Amino acid sequence: MKPGMDGAGWKLDGSTVLLGIVGDPVAQVKAPQPLTERLQATGINAVLVPLQVAPGALAAVLHELLHIRNFAGLIVTVPHKQAAAQAAGPASERALRIGAANVLRRSGSAWEADLFDGLGFVRGLQRAGHAVPGRTACILGAGGAASAIAFALAEAGAKALRIHDIAGERTDALLRRLQAADIEARRWDGVDTGGADLLVNATPLGMKPADPLPLPAASLHPALVVADVVMQPAVTALMAAAAERGCPVQGGRPMMEEQLAMMQDFFAPAIAAAAAGEAR
Amino acid sequence: MKPGMDGAGWKLDGSTVLLGIVGDPVAQVKAPQPLTERLQATGINAVLVPLQVAPGALAAVLHELLHIRNFAGLIVTVPHKQAAAQAAGPASERALRIGAANVLRRSGSAWEADLFDGLGFVRGLQRAGHAVPGRTACILGAGGAASAIAFALAEAGAKALRIHDIAGERTDALLRRLQAADIEARRWDGVDTGGADLLVNATPLGMKPADPLPLPAASLHPALVVADVVMQPAVTALMAAAAERGCPVQGGRPMMEEQLAMMQDFFAPAIAAAAAGEAR
Repeated sequence: MKPGMDGAGWKLDGSTVLLGIVGDPVAQVKAPQPLTERLQATGINAVLVPLQVAPGALAAVLHELLHIRNFAGLIVTVPHKQAAAQAAGPASERALRIGAANVLRRSGSAWEADLFDGLGFVRGLQRAGHAVPGRTACILGAGGAASAIAFALAEAGAKALRIHDIAGERTDALLRRLQAADIEARRWDGVDTGGADLLVNATPLGMKPADPLPLPAASLHPALVVADVVMQPAVTALMAAAAERGCPVQGGRPMMEEQLAMMQDFFAPAIAAAAAGEAR
Repeated sequence: MKPGMDGAGWKLDGSTVLLGIVGDPVAQVKAPQPLTERLQATGINAVLVPLQVAPGALAAVLHELLHIRNFAGLIVTVPHKQAAAQAAGPASERALRIGAANVLRRSGSAWEADLFDGLGFVRGLQRAGHAVPGRTACILGAGGAASAIAFALAEAGAKALRIHDIAGERTDALLRRLQAADIEARRWDGVDTGGADLLVNATPLGMKPADPLPLPAASLHPALVVADVVMQPAVTALMAAAAERGCPVQGGRPMMEEQLAMMQDFFAPAIAAAAAGEAR
């Protein structure tokens, strides 16, 4: 058991404010313990609990959760991120642009949406000393995580993006959205990293021990910062291969840590309002 | 802070099964911490969280909670006990008879209801060595708690019940229901305890420091076991006055302890099913 995994010191009573993390499945999520600890360490009586909700049921659940007055907000994970953005009321520009939300907080009688996936990734990179402005990034994957990261890298000043996904139409769809936002982005073969400063694995490859590397090891040249969004294992085969070749590497955990910090700030006003409503 | 109030050792992760305690208000409820501790002490990964739901919204919330697959059950408190019995699917005989439920567990796509208020009270008495069969009980109050206790005392073999409530029509309504169930019960003046073995305060009198005694102190003769459903303070003015006059006294806490034990058993199959569903 990892330090702190036993939840020592948590408050749970009639005044506890609730946050949920909604997914299907949900057993794999990591956030309940560290976010609850962060909140309670600052004296906030709130817990983050998992909510397993099937695809298609999210909008109805969101509607009824508004009737639970001490329920302040949600973290949204697969497969609900698009549905969350659609079901929400006001949404941040980045959530609207990407059409996905991974956080919702109660605001009056509506859910307010934001998306921290990409920003968490960029902040994790920056915290590790890897500057983004002017860089060229190769992104493996063109799904939800890749889209969020691509937009966030561009917003942080990346010069150019190269996108590769095994599904060509998914690559094209993301490229169209990036180009529509005036972001310099083009299709990439998934192999040639010449001239690139940053490689991002935004595919699930690396979660399972038998997974192949998401690109040939020979593509890993030492000028490349190699970042993996996979959180488990903490060091993926890609990260190990990159480190061996002298690349600076970054795993999925710092991205999660940055997101937890942003979520804590995002939920704060909704938790305070729920706690005050409770006290009425 | 009381021992154990800090929730040391609780597990909270993606596989945690949820139970809720629903009320309005809900800040006063005591069960989240002790029930969570009981469950987790037996290796069950579940937490009991408060849910503040306004009157009238319970049925809709219950319906949608079925969509949260790791949500296994609910404790129901004021003002939702009647609505819970109505909204539930299958209900126990005692819940049906009294028209109220204080526990609901998921059973397939419905909520199964039971009512442990009265039984918890009777078991608390018995655990303290106060036999019920053949006894005559005077009950102060004719509301939800009093009804549950009256039926449970009768079921446990009490010979006769005497009921007093400041609202005469409420007394009459309870008497009609008791008499319809062939239970020996009659209206009582709230003062004369001659011939009675047991006095139950099932009114809220005693919660506030300024509350008067729920009956004259002179009514407290030493042959009377005096039980109070008020849980806070642990020793009410009635209990103190009764102890001074030599009566055995019983507070609200043992009733809660017995209920927690029954709830733990009641929720067990629904928690197991939710945990198994999660693992699918």
